[in-house]
Order: sequence, then structure tokens, then C-alpha cells
Amino acid sequence: MTFALLQHGGRVDAAARRYGGSRRDWLDLSTGINPRPWPVAKAGHVEWANLPSPETLVELEAAAAAHFGCAPELCCAMPGSEAGMRLLARLIGLPGRAVPPTYRTHVDAFAESAPILFGEDPGAAATVMIANPANPDGTLRDGSALLAWHDRIAARDGWLVVDEAFADATPAQSVAGNVAARANLVVLRSFGKFFGLAGLRLGFAIAPPLLIASLRRAMGDWPLHAAALRIASAAYRDQSWIAQARIYLAARAVALDAMLDRHGLIGMGASPLFRLVVTPDAAALFERLARARILVRPFADKPNHLRFGVPADGLALARLDRALRDG
Amino acid sequence: MTFALLQHGGRVDAAARRYGGSRRDWLDLSTGINPRPWPVAKAGHVEWANLPSPETLVELEAAAAAHFGCAPELCCAMPGSEAGMRLLARLIGLPGRAVPPTYRTHVDAFAESAPILFGEDPGAAATVMIANPANPDGTLRDGSALLAWHDRIAARDGWLVVDEAFADATPAQSVAGNVAARANLVVLRSFGKFFGLAGLRLGFAIAPPLLIASLRRAMGDWPLHAAALRIASAAYRDQSWIAQARIYLAARAVALDAMLDRHGLIGMGASPLFRLVVTPDAAALFERLARARILVRPFADKPNHLRFGVPADGLALARLDRALRDG
Repeated sequence: MTFALLQHGGRVDAAARRYGGSRRDWLDLSTGINPRPWPVAKAGHVEWANLPSPETLVELEAAAAAHFGCAPELCCAMPGSEAGMRLLARLIGLPGRAVPPTYRTHVDAFAESAPILFGEDPGAAATVMIANPANPDGTLRDGSALLAWHDRIAARDGWLVVDEAFADATPAQSVAGNVAARANLVVLRSFGKFFGLAGLRLGFAIAPPLLIASLRRAMGDWPLHAAALRIASAAYRDQSWIAQARIYLAARAVALDAMLDRHGLIGMGASPLFRLVVTPDAAALFERLARARILVRPFADKPNHLRFGVPADGLALARLDRALRDG
Repeated sequence: MTFALLQHGGRVDAAARRYGGSRRDWLDLSTGINPRPWPVAKAGHVEWANLPSPETLVELEAAAAAHFGCAPELCCAMPGSEAGMRLLARLIGLPGRAVPPTYRTHVDAFAESAPILFGEDPGAAATVMIANPANPDGTLRDGSALLAWHDRIAARDGWLVVDEAFADATPAQSVAGNVAARANLVVLRSFGKFFGLAGLRLGFAIAPPLLIASLRRAMGDWPLHAAALRIASAAYRDQSWIAQARIYLAARAVALDAMLDRHGLIGMGASPLFRLVVTPDAAALFERLARARILVRPFADKPNHLRFGVPADGLALARLDRALRDG
């Protein structure tokens, strides 16, 4: 296993260099990205020549806010939630505390991150980061429990940042609609995962007005490229696709769970975009799948963890099934 | 004239609301963007589904560095030089001084910007920003004069940031190749202007290794979207298009100058992407052109300035000629 594969999912080029084959020989299950993307052709022609107009940004943020269930004036688009997280950490300027299992970027964004358990009193003012659903174990917390925790953190003059990058498939537990009423709550959303278009690099912060103003000032007048504006505006408005994608992903996750179960593996998590498998054989299992040109996600600090992205269809599922059986 | 038109060029929607017509009725000469863009179809299909691979970023930065004439390891791509400038100002963390005529973003990026004259001793450590060619007057400074000034600024522990957003057409005066040998020199480049693809939001910083590392850390692992990586990699390698574009822009600028001259106006500047006209009639001239659905760039703090983007062809030039004559 090479360093690149332990850093992030989606490093198919690195996997092909290590285990052979060309990019297209590989089945990439190393990310939590929807394998059936929103069809970009529906958005029509992207015009790259002009500077994006401010009106198109207003339209996108209105469409996204309607999808998140929050007020549009509290919703700020960013060129990737990854970059946005790092910016946010700097703007809030408090010590960072992240809830395990911690996403690498959460730790990276805060220079001096110290872990905190869910519900724990931070003691002093801190920016507390939690992913809901969590990554990679897929734990889904009740929105009401997050809000109660926010109130205790805010009483210490701290902030609660809820990373809802994988929340689109489980909207009932989102706290995006509660930002207006809570002083120190920030919600992060990601476009690319649920809509299957990670190459677009688009995320959102839902935050109180003063923080939104600081974010906008830090990013300047043209935070987004023309395709992000055009494609995501149309995708967030495509309610029938969104409803179908939720059903599709749930069905694919159920099929993955049943297949893992037949191999004596338990798929953990409440996000239908991925499952976590915890097994002492993780390293050997990773190697066996890699030799069959299937890339799953190992973790440097958790040698018994493997994350499986949901296979797109019966064919991909059968290929994974065979690789698990024949190894 | 409305506030939006005084903020930035390219606000055709705002112009159409104020003066009538639909977007396509307008001839937009309000930006310094090449009106004949690099043909994006040459780059082939953009794949939005996957996370961009780190290899594609390395390839783009190598192609861009070859075009800029600098070492690839000193060249860092950013989602727009506008956002990059603001980030850079925060990372360097010194008081900002900008050389008039100052681009609005230069002033915005540094909270406490105070002007400085070209060649002046800053007295104390400061981040000095200069655009070369300057915007909007198009003044082009000798690279050697900039380097001599850098040495005086660096002796005060300050930084010189040269914004070469409009430098692609006049490469001889670029100081991008001098960054390695100068301790406190940063060069900013923009993709969208010369290549006519401003909607892509892509810029570069050429800076010493420690600052490059800080920039990369602040932006995270996926700073760019898939189309920026694919299109700009191909465009920066397209040497025959680049050579032809330099000839084309120079010829269009000469034609614009000759036409302005016939109307008793002087087109100032050494960048073939735009000309500055200084005239006491600027406000009336702006209104007359706007009534003919031609948008040029006025400036809030300089009521006698108008910037004209270079018209794409004889047809656009003739339309401007008519509007100037008939008013």
C-alpha cells in the first residue's frame, strides 16, 4: 500500500501504478461519491468566456438554500468545502476540537486540533467540528442532540461546525435550517458527493450573517467558476432526480450490505454513499481487492478499517462479490 | 450610471437593466478579456464525476510554469487570482501598499492599504503591490526596474507582489523567472484574460518555496476543478495559438488606437487587451455608448477615465466607431 492511497480516496492513478492496469481497468470504491452522477447535459452549454455575473451566484445560493432548508442570505457558496473548511478555521480563529472518527481535513484545518467526544463540554472556547453522518463510520446523530450540544458549546463562547458533506441522502437530521436561531452554529455542505460530480469543487457554508460577510470578503467577487454556477443551480432544483437518487442509493446500500454479510463482513453506517468494514484482515483484504483492480479506502491510523463506496449497479456489485469470494 | 458598473467590468446584466436591451444586444468592452477565446473544444471532454487527481495538477503547473518561464516547483495554481491575492495578503501579514493606479482588489485585499509611488522606499516592512502592465492605464515597467525596487523593499523586510494579470501579451518584461533568485518577490498570473476564458477562475502565484507551501496548505488537496485542469493544461501548451493571439491582439489594439484618434481620443497603455481614454467628457461618452448598447468601463474615483476593451473584429470596431460618431 502506498502513501497516496492512505491520504484520500479516489487515487486510482496511484493504485494503477502500484498494482497495475490502466485507470479504466479499475473499479473505484474508494470514495463516498455517488457513482451515478446528475446528468450534466441537462444544464446545457457552459459559457467560459465571460466573468460569471453576480446574479448567477444569487440564483445558485437560492436553489441550494431551498434544498438545504435554510435562509438564502445565510448560505455562501465556496470553491470546495475542503478549501472552505480551512478558511473557516482561520476566520473563527479558536483552537479546534474534532469529534472522532475525524476526517483528515478537519484535523489539518486546525493546526492544534485535540479530539473531543460527542456531547462533551469543551471547557474553554473552541471550534468543535463534527461530521454528520460521520466519515468513515457513517454514524448519524439526531439533529436535536447536535443543537443541544451547540448550546453548551456556545455558552463557552465556542462554535459548533457540523460537516454535512454526506447529509443529502438523510435530510431529516440536517441542522442547516437551525443556523438562523443559533448564534454559533455553522453547517458545511458539499455538492459533489450526493450529485456525483466531485470534479466541480463546490461547497457551501451556512452561517450567521457576520461570518458569511467575512467568508465573502475573503473569497472576493468571483468565488465560483461558470460550470459550478450553471450545473449546480440546475441540479439543486431537480427535485425528481434528488428523490430518485435517494431511493437508488438506499437500494444499492442494502444490496451491498447483503453481499458483505454473505462474506461474513458487517457494513457499518447510516449514509447510503458508503459502508465501513472493521476487520483484522483489512490489509490482506485491501491487497486482494487491489489485485482484482478494485480500490477501496484504507486508513493510515486505523489498520483494521476499510471503507467501501456503494457500487453503482449489479455488475459492479457482482465484481466485488467475486473478488471477495475468490481471494 | 449604477454602482454595479463602477465596481468591476463585465456587468452586462446590470447595464441592460439600466439602459435596456437584452444581454446579447450588448457589445461588452468593459473588461480586459481577450474577445477571441482559446477554443475549449480542443481540450476534449471534461470529466466532472471524479475528484481531480494530483497528477493533473502537477501537469497543469508544469505547463503554466513553462509559459511563465519559471521553475514549476515555485508555481502554485489557485481558484482565481482574485481569491489568491486575498489569501496571499493574509499569509504575508504585513501592511499593504499599492502603486497607483490601483486595482480595486489590491486595495480590498489589504485592509489598511496606503499608496506608494513606483521606486519609492517603503520606509518600513510592507507588502507592496504593483500591476505590470498596470490597470487601467496600461503602463508597462521594465522588469529590471522592478527587480531593483524589489531589492530595496526586501532590505526593509518587505515583499514585492507583481500582478502580471495582463502580462501574457508582453512576456519580455515579466519577472516570473526571477522569483527563485529574489527572496521576497511574488508574481501573480491570471489565465482567463489572455486566453479569454474568465469564467474558468484560474490564477497562479509564483513565490518562494515556504510561501508556496503555505498557499498549498491553505487551499487544501483539491484547489482546482476538473475543467480548469484540463482546459488550461492544453491552452498553456498551445504555443502556436499563443503566438497568433499575441499578433492578433496587437493588430486589434492598433486598429482601436487609429479609430480613437479619428475621434480626437488618445488610447493609452501598453497592453493590447485594453486602452485607457482620459477625457473630461467621459461621463457623457459612457452614456452615449451605453445608449448604443456598448459597455465600457467607468471608474468611481476617476470620473474622467474610461477603459475600452479591444474590439474582437472589424465589425465590433465599426459599431464602436459609429456610436462615437453619431452621438
